[in-house]
This record gives sequence, structure tokens and C-alpha cells, in this order.
Amino acid sequence: MNLVVDIGNTSVKVAVFQDAELLEKTSFSLKDFSEKISEIKKKYPQTGAAILSSVVKDVKNEVNLLQKGLYFLQLSPDLALPFRNCYATPLTLGKDRIALAAAAVAAFPQKNVLVIDAGTCITYDFKNAKEEYLGGSISPGLEMRFKALHKFTANLPLLTTEEDVKLIGDSTKSSILSGVVNGMLDEIDGTINAYRSKYEDLTVIFTGGDEQFLSMRLKNGIFANSNFLLEGLNYILEFNRTQ
Amino acid sequence: MNLVVDIGNTSVKVAVFQDAELLEKTSFSLKDFSEKISEIKKKYPQTGAAILSSVVKDVKNEVNLLQKGLYFLQLSPDLALPFRNCYATPLTLGKDRIALAAAAVAAFPQKNVLVIDAGTCITYDFKNAKEEYLGGSISPGLEMRFKALHKFTANLPLLTTEEDVKLIGDSTKSSILSGVVNGMLDEIDGTINAYRSKYEDLTVIFTGGDEQFLSMRLKNGIFANSNFLLEGLNYILEFNRTQ
Repeated sequence: MNLVVDIGNTSVKVAVFQDAELLEKTSFSLKDFSEKISEIKKKYPQTGAAILSSVVKDVKNEVNLLQKGLYFLQLSPDLALPFRNCYATPLTLGKDRIALAAAAVAAFPQKNVLVIDAGTCITYDFKNAKEEYLGGSISPGLEMRFKALHKFTANLPLLTTEEDVKLIGDSTKSSILSGVVNGMLDEIDGTINAYRSKYEDLTVIFTGGDEQFLSMRLKNGIFANSNFLLEGLNYILEFNRTQ
Repeated sequence: MNLVVDIGNTSVKVAVFQDAELLEKTSFSLKDFSEKISEIKKKYPQTGAAILSSVVKDVKNEVNLLQKGLYFLQLSPDLALPFRNCYATPLTLGKDRIALAAAAVAAFPQKNVLVIDAGTCITYDFKNAKEEYLGGSISPGLEMRFKALHKFTANLPLLTTEEDVKLIGDSTKSSILSGVVNGMLDEIDGTINAYRSKYEDLTVIFTGGDEQFLSMRLKNGIFANSNFLLEGLNYILEFNRTQ
């Protein structure tokens, strides 16, 4: 049984896996780390291994707590990985992006796969049919765009996503909703189209906190999987443990 | 002779017009307002009228200086405008967007016109062939997206635009460049396509600080005009003065 922990920019996600099967998933704030992890370890005493991925730099205390009594890995670009990392600067590849590429290999071996992760940032990651990770792109996520419009201008309000989005906004609110939401959808569809014109038989995975809201509005067909990053981390843990 | 002044989020732009012809254009920081305006008034003593548009709220001192001895207008949504303002909340329509809609009427009367202004924000504004302004959208500008990625995450660097942008970034830097620049281009092309599929014979005007960098990379054909907002303000001034 594996404990998979992902410390992101806004929250901590934890999943318990039995082999490749996800048994339970939870999410909480970093300040509750110690309490929540102890609870989970108590609930699943058969846990034998854990992997941590963190975009936050100082996680010494979290590591100490997590690794107690377990086979433990902290994700970094110099671990053994189930793909060839063709990033020009492989050691700077973000941990979430490593996990997503690993998940693409696990779920779609020998396929061209574009993984789109719509969270704090939206990341695009591509691995080809030869299990080579080539890279991708990073742009601001949905909430970040709303936040930026408010923070970096004198007069615009802070909005959040709503269901009803017009093309032609006729108020400040509907104009911002149109610009941010339609703009992101155009970006995502445009990016998928650009990859499709370069790579045949492209499989597109959509994951991340804004997956549901965005993916149902896209013109392109995609596979939605809200657990893709966690599955990737679990795969990296299994891959290293059994080597 | 008209003095046209636009106080934006990041700088002040000033233009001198003889009827519809732009004679001189300059740009400076708000703190230099008094010095620069005095210089321009001295250089063009025939100036008879001035118009001010400001997104900054407190400009009492600037107004006092500007209106001395001149026919003076401060742009607001309750001025007489050369188009019908169909915004659901007409009094909240941004001043820059009023000016752009007026410029669209002046330059392309009885046409469907989409004006794209790529500055601090990117704004899209549409007026139809019946001279009705319907609204549009607002999303973060190029620099704002770079800034947001840096400010609102733990680990991403602050970048600025560069000429060489790949589809598949293979470093943090080229990934961000790809995401921000290609994402914006997809957004702009996608927005133009959405309007084109609704309105035949659409004329697209591209203006704003990032016009040059972005417009040459678009798939759609556009008219570039870096003075469009200033021309719109001048047209509103003339329109009110001669009524």
C-alpha cells in the first residue's frame, strides 16, 4: 500500500494506492499536514511506502513525519523515471510535470500524449510514442487570471468563475468572464490543434482543479482524469521500488 | 488644435491633433505630468481644446493644469458619444473602451468593427454597422501574464517577451514563453474567429503597446493602428465641440 503526497501552491493532496488502484483521496491545507498524515497512517497501517512531490521548497518537517517507518522517496528529476527526459534543462523540470509525464507513460504506453493540467497554472506536457518527454508550456490558470486583473489594475474587481459566459460581455463582470474563460478555452483548443497538426494519433488528457469547468466547454475531445498526477506519482514510486 | 491626454495604468500618453491629423505624440510617467504638459502647451500655443481620459481616479491637479484657457472635456460615459452605448451598465464602461469604440466609428463608419487593444489588459470591443457599441471582453495583457506567473507561484521566474517562441518549451523559460505568447495568440485568433462566425464583413483593428509583437504572429488579417485610442479621444472632442 502506497501513500502519495503532493504539496502544491495552494493545498496538499494525499492519496492511498493499493498497487495501481486508488483507495482514498483527500486534500487539506499545509498547516494541517502533521494531523492529517497521522490520521491516514493510522487508518492504513499496511502502508509500506510513500512518495512526496512538493513545489514548496522547505518541507523538512513534512519529510521527517512522512518517511517514519516507510520506504520513502522524494520526487526529483534525478530519480529513475519511466521516460527519457529530453528537457534541455532536465534538473529544472517541475515536479508536477514529471509526475504527469510518468502518468502518461503508465496510462498510454507507446502513444503520443499531451497532458493538460489546469490548476494554479495551466501546464501542457508532451511525451511521444517512444516514451520521450519533450517538454511543453506553462501559462496562468483560471483563478490566477482573475486575480491578476484585479491586483495589477486600478479599477477592475476580483471575480471568480461562473457558468454563464457570453462572447460579448455587456458589463465589467461579463466582459472579464468572457475574456478570461473564452480566452483560456481558445488557448487550450489552439494548443491541442497545434500538437495535433504535428503529431498524429494524439491522446489528450485533461486534469487539475479546473478540469470539469473547462473540459466540457472545449471543441476538442479529451480524456478527463482528476487523479492523473497522483497516479503518476504512484507509478514513479512503484517503478523505483521494484527496480 | 486639440490636446489629447490619456492617463493609463502604466503611463500618460499625449497627442496633438490638427483636425483629424496627428501632429505629435509623446508618452511619460504621471509624476512628470505638470512639466510635460506645460512644455507641450508652450510648443503649440494655437491649442484651443483638450480632452482627458484617465483610468486613475484622483486626477484633480492634472485636470486643473490641463483646462486652463482651453475648451476642456473629461471623458465619461455620460458625454455625447458618436455611437449608441448598448452596454447593460453604460456608466461603468471603461474610458479606454469608449475611446476605442469612437475611433471605430470615425475610421470605419457603418461597418462591423472589432477593436483589440493589447496593453496592460487586452480588451476586445465591438461596434456594429448600425453604430451600436455592444461590449466585448477583458483579459490579462502579455506583461501581466508573465508577472502573474512569478507573483502567484513559489518558484517561477519573472520573464519578459522574446522573439523566439517554440510550441514545445524545453526549459522553464521556453515553457513559460510558449504558454504565455502562444496562449495569447490562440486567444486573439479564437476571439476573432468567434466574432467572424457571427458577423460578416468584420473589420479587425489591432492597437496597444503589444500590437507589433502580437499582430505579426496572428493567423487572422488585421489593421494595425498604434494611435487608435488617441484618434478616438480626438473624435469625441470634435464631436462634442461642434454639436
